Amino acid sequence: MTANPTQSFERVAIIGPGLIGSSLAHAMRDAGLSGEIIGFDRDNAIANRALELGVIDKAAPDFAAAVANADLIILATPVGAITGLCELLNAHAPAGALIIDVGSVKGAIAAAAATVRENLYFIPCHPVAGTEQSGPEAGFKTLFKDRWCILTPLAREDEAYKAAVARATALWEAIGAHIEIMDPTHHDLALAVTSHLPHLIAFTLVGAADDLESVTQAEVIKYSAGGFRDFTRIAASDPVMWRDVFIHNKDAVLEVLGRFSEELAVLQRAIRWGDGEALHDAFTRGRELRRAIVDAGQETTAPNFGRDETD
Amino acid sequence: MTANPTQSFERVAIIGPGLIGSSLAHAMRDAGLSGEIIGFDRDNAIANRALELGVIDKAAPDFAAAVANADLIILATPVGAITGLCELLNAHAPAGALIIDVGSVKGAIAAAAATVRENLYFIPCHPVAGTEQSGPEAGFKTLFKDRWCILTPLAREDEAYKAAVARATALWEAIGAHIEIMDPTHHDLALAVTSHLPHLIAFTLVGAADDLESVTQAEVIKYSAGGFRDFTRIAASDPVMWRDVFIHNKDAVLEVLGRFSEELAVLQRAIRWGDGEALHDAFTRGRELRRAIVDAGQETTAPNFGRDETD
Repeated sequence: MTANPTQSFERVAIIGPGLIGSSLAHAMRDAGLSGEIIGFDRDNAIANRALELGVIDKAAPDFAAAVANADLIILATPVGAITGLCELLNAHAPAGALIIDVGSVKGAIAAAAATVRENLYFIPCHPVAGTEQSGPEAGFKTLFKDRWCILTPLAREDEAYKAAVARATALWEAIGAHIEIMDPTHHDLALAVTSHLPHLIAFTLVGAADDLESVTQAEVIKYSAGGFRDFTRIAASDPVMWRDVFIHNKDAVLEVLGRFSEELAVLQRAIRWGDGEALHDAFTRGRELRRAIVDAGQETTAPNFGRDETD
Repeated sequence: MTANPTQSFERVAIIGPGLIGSSLAHAMRDAGLSGEIIGFDRDNAIANRALELGVIDKAAPDFAAAVANADLIILATPVGAITGLCELLNAHAPAGALIIDVGSVKGAIAAAAATVRENLYFIPCHPVAGTEQSGPEAGFKTLFKDRWCILTPLAREDEAYKAAVARATALWEAIGAHIEIMDPTHHDLALAVTSHLPHLIAFTLVGAADDLESVTQAEVIKYSAGGFRDFTRIAASDPVMWRDVFIHNKDAVLEVLGRFSEELAVLQRAIRWGDGEALHDAFTRGRELRRAIVDAGQETTAPNFGRDETD
């Protein structure tokens, strides 16, 4: 691992070529960062689809064949698979390989990553990017452009590991991402706020609307432009991925959920008491925060997310 | 009111030429449905801006001047203004005028509309359309295209009132909307589900994220692409309009909020207990519902609302 951090990889193994894995394949190929890209998925149909689409150059029959001779191994599976993958890495990954994951939870990943052999260089990563779609068809090369990627490196002081962190950083930057280095516990709390809780709330709202007796599903669909439809986007995300996120980030999610429920109780009481001033004050905070998100390049400026033809 | 339902209006008064009022002005002018359009706002600056932008043809100095000789009066203010407006209509509106509003709550509006003189024809309307922006600049002529507009007519059996309902229907249809006739109580419950509760939840989430001690606002902004940013769109909506909605639709909102809280408690318990199967089952409902909303023409098909350049 004394290589130039910006050099390309000769053989890249992608474990789980879904939305994120296939987007990485597209982006790396486009940036001239990859030699051969080998894909493996425990569902053969997914690897074969990735091959047909030209996302990967070869579909490997098993994990061992996928990582043989790889200098970069990308773990792009749901978070729950991580323990089993670390055992497979210990058994089959070639000495010197750089390993990155893309999981939305970092505490559990960092703990698992600390169990791999010392001659493997596992840098836990979380690119804060995605869409509500899944599978190899959903990937595209600009997914990470101007998005943040959070690295939570292990507590290793060896130079080879530090060089691996530099290489992982260079890789993400070469495909357009901005890097932040963070403690995994803080990552899991920050992302519980900006990603995990919003998904939980969206799933909850969709579930609540689905179960009503007095309002039909046809009405929910018809009048969804009143606001509901916004929530259905992230509520359409991959259920397995999100099940694993909540199982592996329980403490942080329950903490921010407590804060949310407290705020909701305050607004509920203001509605019950007809306290218009309290409601108005609470409702004025959204505009400023949205403007800041737009100014930071993390959101479109167009009204209604640009859904309407306005000319 | 025995006129042909599709004929145009000679003089249209728009009370409150904001996002919805000015969109109606653009759409009616474009469809050749309006002669002169007079605007009035209790904030003179808004009426003057609407005049400068060419949204209205004249800015009236007061309500009485705005509605003088009008054959169509459009009330496009926040819902809380309705009682005062009905008193002004009784005092100043010309006999025979068709009156429509655009409020997001219909029970309170229908009760107020029942207090206007019998020679005024008030049809409560709710176009389920909008953006997170406000003011005369925000209006555009296609806002109502392929959106639903719900009418909750008064319990009046006279032929002139029925003709007025037909004329209001023809007006909305001419600018691209689809019409549904509904009881105001059912409207308020259905919209509590599809619009009012989603807004309340979005305001709550933004408030909860704004108040955290452990995660900075800079981090919330940076990592908002993880899902949070979706909620900030509707949380950026007009605080006065939304204050009035919750004050005037208290019962229905509290009812659907109870249903939401129940569903949230179930998911919270599943997270605490690590019940992955319950989470997975709950999370699978979103995709189907979103597909149905897209199929119904109420949502874009593009991933991430089409925010990304994917080519």
